[in-house]
Amino acid sequence: MSLAIGVDIGGTKVLAGVVDEAGQVIATTRRATPSRDVVETEAVIVEAVTELMGRYQISAVGIGAAGWIANDHATVLFSPHLAWRNEPLRDALAEAIGVPVLVENDGNAAAWAEYRFGAARDFEVAVMVTLGTGIGGGLVLGGSLYRGAFGVGCEYGLMTVVPDGRRCACGNRGCWEMYASGTALARDAMELADSSTVSAHRLMELAGGQRAALTGQLVTEAAREGDAAAVEIYTEMGRWLGRGLANLAAVLDPSVFVIGGGVSEAGDLLLAPARQAFSETLTGRGFRPAAELRLAALGPESGLVGAADLARSSRPQAG
Amino acid sequence: MSLAIGVDIGGTKVLAGVVDEAGQVIATTRRATPSRDVVETEAVIVEAVTELMGRYQISAVGIGAAGWIANDHATVLFSPHLAWRNEPLRDALAEAIGVPVLVENDGNAAAWAEYRFGAARDFEVAVMVTLGTGIGGGLVLGGSLYRGAFGVGCEYGLMTVVPDGRRCACGNRGCWEMYASGTALARDAMELADSSTVSAHRLMELAGGQRAALTGQLVTEAAREGDAAAVEIYTEMGRWLGRGLANLAAVLDPSVFVIGGGVSEAGDLLLAPARQAFSETLTGRGFRPAAELRLAALGPESGLVGAADLARSSRPQAG
Repeated sequence: MSLAIGVDIGGTKVLAGVVDEAGQVIATTRRATPSRDVVETEAVIVEAVTELMGRYQISAVGIGAAGWIANDHATVLFSPHLAWRNEPLRDALAEAIGVPVLVENDGNAAAWAEYRFGAARDFEVAVMVTLGTGIGGGLVLGGSLYRGAFGVGCEYGLMTVVPDGRRCACGNRGCWEMYASGTALARDAMELADSSTVSAHRLMELAGGQRAALTGQLVTEAAREGDAAAVEIYTEMGRWLGRGLANLAAVLDPSVFVIGGGVSEAGDLLLAPARQAFSETLTGRGFRPAAELRLAALGPESGLVGAADLARSSRPQAG
Repeated sequence: MSLAIGVDIGGTKVLAGVVDEAGQVIATTRRATPSRDVVETEAVIVEAVTELMGRYQISAVGIGAAGWIANDHATVLFSPHLAWRNEPLRDALAEAIGVPVLVENDGNAAAWAEYRFGAARDFEVAVMVTLGTGIGGGLVLGGSLYRGAFGVGCEYGLMTVVPDGRRCACGNRGCWEMYASGTALARDAMELADSSTVSAHRLMELAGGQRAALTGQLVTEAAREGDAAAVEIYTEMGRWLGRGLANLAAVLDPSVFVIGGGVSEAGDLLLAPARQAFSETLTGRGFRPAAELRLAALGPESGLVGAADLARSSRPQAG
């Protein structure tokens, strides 16, 4: 049984895991991300990988990073939450690690994991939408990951859905991820708290009375409890999700949409309004077959599972 | 030299042509489309094809139709301007025609022609956007036409770009083709004529004083003359074009966008504002390579050229 390590690098944590050929995670280790420092971040990755390699025989290492990865699977062009700019990450890591290393966008890695081992298995055209701080995206076409001409495709969250809408971290306005993500949940909760202390009572209670503590996770928690205001925030967000999926269906016509990420843990509170808006907005409804909407099967480890599987199966070059 | 016939079927005309292996059109014939009657439309197609087959040795016939074609390349699921609903068009034609027949969406056929013989040649990921009455679209990935899971992908014009925006023929509101197409040009010209007889003076003159005669073609003609109002309408439309292309770049990350159709005949009057809006809206600008924007090379026969070439190269089944 060939084992590979997958590493998921986010803005706050580095999560590394040993993954077997069936996609099972058999060990993990975690570090905080020193996100402002390139050398330190790379040292933390090597440390986490080295720890796991001391305990398991590993054939390859896949890095899933929240950033734009060139088609060489080696260079991070840009990362919004990390200090990398045109960083030759694969080569910076490969010598210290000593086995082949591959670098992949985290949304792509998660999509690959769901295609290989999760909710998108056996689908011809699978679109993965990961609702976290922003929207991560991936696309598996006929059994291959689609990366675009320059490696920066599937940035679904950065489609403009509202002209001159909410300002996004990417610099534009009205991006989809400003209306459907953990950031959107938190923002809606804050707007609600500013305008209606009655409606926002339970949310503010969960936030310990601190407006700034109103996070997406907290809205998810309140919605799952049944709090009316949180459910309404989720319903509105589900509609935005469905409308964006309908746009993606006009372009990509997939067989399945897989919805993952922390925000999707609300399940039907999100999916029911998303399905309704999707079917209301889908172009040509009634005259076409349409994609299924499914929840992701793999949970928060999908990024590292996909990165490990891609590294194992691609037999990339070391160094 | 193997010859094939391509047939472009629009709402008003059937244009058939004999196409050689180099993509050259060596003969054409044209008929009006009896668009409300399935049997008559099919009879007209057979008549046009039979006429050309009497004069040339033909190996295959490709039909490019303004409609949604299932992945069997045989069935028209739906056509907005023609009477077809789940019509087995290939089989209805193949017996009378006697050589293999393939049916393809017209936007896909035009994209294939530009990839094989035109502005998209040698590009790895080519997106074609055809600005006519609406927006036709196509995508060539690694030398193959992308059709989506159900054959109805690349309907770029039906992406929502303005929530609750202009009502579209597809039934939704705010579709991209309501802001960037011949229909959009005509509508903008009518709105201008309604509000400013001074600005719309030249446009109304060209329209013979008839508001209802303000077509997209007429706006194109006035813009090419240098009429300020028509140029402004084109500038605004170019901006919408560029914004929509930036959305497509976020999803598809192509190497090239090819812009065709009658509306593109204004050239830089359209492309200059489109390039500016594209570069202003492109997500991650400055940290990524970006697609080229190019005008189509093949003109209004691209649909039939592409359909013919697809039919010749796919060796489809007769009957």
